[in-house]
Amino acid sequence: MKAKTPKDSLTVVSDLVLPGETNMLENLFGGELLARMDRAASIAAGRHSNSITVTASVNHVAFNQAVPLGSVVTVEAAVSRAFSTSMEVYIDVWIESRFSGQRSKANEGIYTFVALDDMGKPTKVPPLKPETELEKERFAAALRRKQLSLVLAGKMKPTDATELRALFLGD
Amino acid sequence: MKAKTPKDSLTVVSDLVLPGETNMLENLFGGELLARMDRAASIAAGRHSNSITVTASVNHVAFNQAVPLGSVVTVEAAVSRAFSTSMEVYIDVWIESRFSGQRSKANEGIYTFVALDDMGKPTKVPPLKPETELEKERFAAALRRKQLSLVLAGKMKPTDATELRALFLGD
Amino acid sequence: MKAKTPKDSLTVVSDLVLPGETNMLENLFGGELLARMDRAASIAAGRHSNSITVTASVNHVAFNQAVPLGSVVTVEAAVSRAFSTSMEVYIDVWIESRFSGQRSKANEGIYTFVALDDMGKPTKVPPLKPETELEKERFAAALRRKQLSLVLAGKMKPTDATELRALFLGD
Amino acid sequence: MKAKTPKDSLTVVSDLVLPGETNMLENLFGGELLARMDRAASIAAGRHSNSITVTASVNHVAFNQAVPLGSVVTVEAAVSRAFSTSMEVYIDVWIESRFSGQRSKANEGIYTFVALDDMGKPTKVPPLKPETELEKERFAAALRRKQLSLVLAGKMKPTDATELRALFLGD
Amino acid sequence: MKAKTPKDSLTVVSDLVLPGETNMLENLFGGELLARMDRAASIAAGRHSNSITVTASVNHVAFNQAVPLGSVVTVEAAVSRAFSTSMEVYIDVWIESRFSGQRSKANEGIYTFVALDDMGKPTKVPPLKPETELEKERFAAALRRKQLSLVLAGKMKPTDATELRALFLGD
Amino acid sequence: MKAKTPKDSLTVVSDLVLPGETNMLENLFGGELLARMDRAASIAAGRHSNSITVTASVNHVAFNQAVPLGSVVTVEAAVSRAFSTSMEVYIDVWIESRFSGQRSKANEGIYTFVALDDMGKPTKVPPLKPETELEKERFAAALRRKQLSLVLAGKMKPTDATELRALFLGD
Repeated sequence: MKAKTPKDSLTVVSDLVLPGETNMLENLFGGELLARMDRAASIAAGRHSNSITVTASVNHVAFNQAVPLGSVVTVEAAVSRAFSTSMEVYIDVWIESRFSGQRSKANEGIYTFVALDDMGKPTKVPPLKPETELEKERFAAALRRKQLSLVLAGKMKPTDATELRALFLGD
Repeated sequence: MKAKTPKDSLTVVSDLVLPGETNMLENLFGGELLARMDRAASIAAGRHSNSITVTASVNHVAFNQAVPLGSVVTVEAAVSRAFSTSMEVYIDVWIESRFSGQRSKANEGIYTFVALDDMGKPTKVPPLKPETELEKERFAAALRRKQLSLVLAGKMKPTDATELRALFLGD
Repeated sequence: MKAKTPKDSLTVVSDLVLPGETNMLENLFGGELLARMDRAASIAAGRHSNSITVTASVNHVAFNQAVPLGSVVTVEAAVSRAFSTSMEVYIDVWIESRFSGQRSKANEGIYTFVALDDMGKPTKVPPLKPETELEKERFAAALRRKQLSLVLAGKMKPTDATELRALFLGD
Repeated sequence: MKAKTPKDSLTVVSDLVLPGETNMLENLFGGELLARMDRAASIAAGRHSNSITVTASVNHVAFNQAVPLGSVVTVEAAVSRAFSTSMEVYIDVWIESRFSGQRSKANEGIYTFVALDDMGKPTKVPPLKPETELEKERFAAALRRKQLSLVLAGKMKPTDATELRALFLGD
Repeated sequence: MKAKTPKDSLTVVSDLVLPGETNMLENLFGGELLARMDRAASIAAGRHSNSITVTASVNHVAFNQAVPLGSVVTVEAAVSRAFSTSMEVYIDVWIESRFSGQRSKANEGIYTFVALDDMGKPTKVPPLKPETELEKERFAAALRRKQLSLVLAGKMKPTDATELRALFLGD
Repeated sequence: MKAKTPKDSLTVVSDLVLPGETNMLENLFGGELLARMDRAASIAAGRHSNSITVTASVNHVAFNQAVPLGSVVTVEAAVSRAFSTSMEVYIDVWIESRFSGQRSKANEGIYTFVALDDMGKPTKVPPLKPETELEKERFAAALRRKQLSLVLAGKMKPTDATELRALFLGD
């Protein structure tokens, strides 16, 4: 399978925050943002794998900045690393000032998707070839995150997680 | 005010078609698509004018192709012409094949938005400077559409709509 | 096929404007109103044709008056002209004062629907016979709108659009 | 206060049943129908009282017939009896055959609303004057239902509910 | 069939009141609460009958207390009496103070569900064995409510409704 | 502040999976489940802290088992560890067989919430005192997860994360 770049799967979703999507503090309701990220990330995973994909896990989402009613929010998702039949998708969430047009990073998240064939079985996905510095960093970190996930799930011995060990041993 | 290009207001919204958004033929429900186009177009108008905007009219939407359940739909909206306090926004809707990744044009629409100041009064917007051939065509046609709209609303005499007259007289 | 009147397809939808249906100005969100109009108009088209119908186009919607949170909004849709397998539906939107009970026109829109048979192919619809003055006016204008739509889509030569030509020639 | 008729408050809501509004049997989800009835009934109560109204109780709703996906459903609500500051609203739900256009009664319900003044306190409503036979029957039965409701809530002694006593004593 | 207790079918649903679920007074919209009660009650009926169930009727819902935006609302539903193929479900709605954690009763409702077999025909359900004082009271009252419902529907002669007669005769 | 137990904040949400909440494979849409977990977890955090809370992060969610249309899904959330002004909430998601009534674990997730005072500033929360074995395990692991989160965010040196180091050193 021919490798693809993160740009090949880049998915952009700009949307408003209307009253029906807010919490009682008049900010975008957290669950609604998680759902928007899931929709965008699943399209990115589909663009990379050209197959149906399902969410396997949410690895991390940081809500650093509240998103007020009336905001323009842009969710950008792209595959950050491909494994055999799964893909890590990195999601950046931006808010944009209506008056200056400048945008600032509000949140980010990392989801994992599995590609499925017509019978609903996991199927191979193309490798990912990162291009920019940021893409390369995320690509490298994805392996540590995968090891960590396997360790926490009891499917890998901590002492076999060589990437992670190096990090904590400080060698 | 400094002119802006259509690219400055380009707004991209890729999204899925889930069962809760379909009609009884298992295609994207028309009203849901109209709402998605409205959200995208209102962001484009806001990006051009850096102000709050409200929908003034839907000039035309053509539903050329049904959008089946499970599709990835991309709505792209950009300002196609700016008038004194209003903007015409042109919206292209694309469907993308999950398996080949190729995309085809499904629908298109034209909406008009008005920019509002803090008091809710119409406020000036920057002029639009089209760059590509397509942008120039849409820019030119926007004037005919505006004349037509004024004629149909009884606010302009047909014989004063010089752009339109030329079209129908075939001179 | 026996002709039907606009009254035969008249569809009435009164509804509230709740917070989850508003924009950030606390008025009914434009996209939500477009969806409500689409639902009402599709019922009117179904009542005229006794078949399944799909939205073919939105010809025009004018948002003349904002619809505030808490309003009672009534959407009235009726077929305004039938062509071979398609129907133009005219939609009036009314707001009603809670305290006096008086109602005023807020918006109006014109949509076109196509009737489909069981195989999803366009199927014949009955002719429309307008009765009131307003119905007759809308019936006549519908033909000009159809010509205009064909001209704009490049499917009719402007010089063949006799109804429209007359309008702009000012004869 | 001048009496009003049921026709003065008649509220009509025709709508589709789309997939996002069904249960797992592909019929209109019961809770969704209850919500549609509540919206229609609250408009009827507002039209009778020209004030803000809130749902005080649902007295009865009978789901006699399932409403399948794709149906056209018409909810008709009208005030059936006015008390001092409250109103009983009777709601009829009709399904209509897409092919013959004939409609049949699917369900009916009875809700009670209270009228509120600007301070949120209950406020007087006009008396209701029923006109047709059906309206007169519902008007008479409304008093028995109110007594029953008071008896069941422990706010009236069964032996004081003269209308009801007569019914059960079979005198 | 082995009898079950109300506790066996107890269904608990705690949820927030977000802005998209309120009415124009910023309280939980009545129709939304009716839908939440329906969802909870249908689960309770399913837990009792181990079958698919559909709402047959809403017998009564009292909205005693408004539920403000931001509240934590807990809906508790449990079967209160089983008949041959139907079940009465009693639903208590509680609001809870965010600051003291204390909860108070806001509303209650009574719904009836029918159990269906695979062919969509009504099917037998296990008997209910109430345990607590409150459960026994509700169990006894359920029979009176059923008689009342039959009388009101014209399916039972008032003089045959022995439980109800006793109530109104005051013997 | 008096310590609380996980049981004090336990929040139970049983709900159906209706068609409007599914993805194109007819399973509960991932984003919808994330939103339901967020709502439940935010109630648990509020019950522990008796204050308003906002989602700070999603630490992990594992989608081990698809949740088919028509399922009864129960989300159970309880605070698993309290820090100074934040709380980790552990969420278990169960599916229940309609026919046997037995339930199985479908997914689980871990979210972090921050308690806010009236001014929107972080405020102290009571300590958590775990009681059962499972609660004690989750309490212990929560500290490792917090260290990990600080390390990954660059706010703690890996060599200072003593709990984590021990894990990877394999001592």
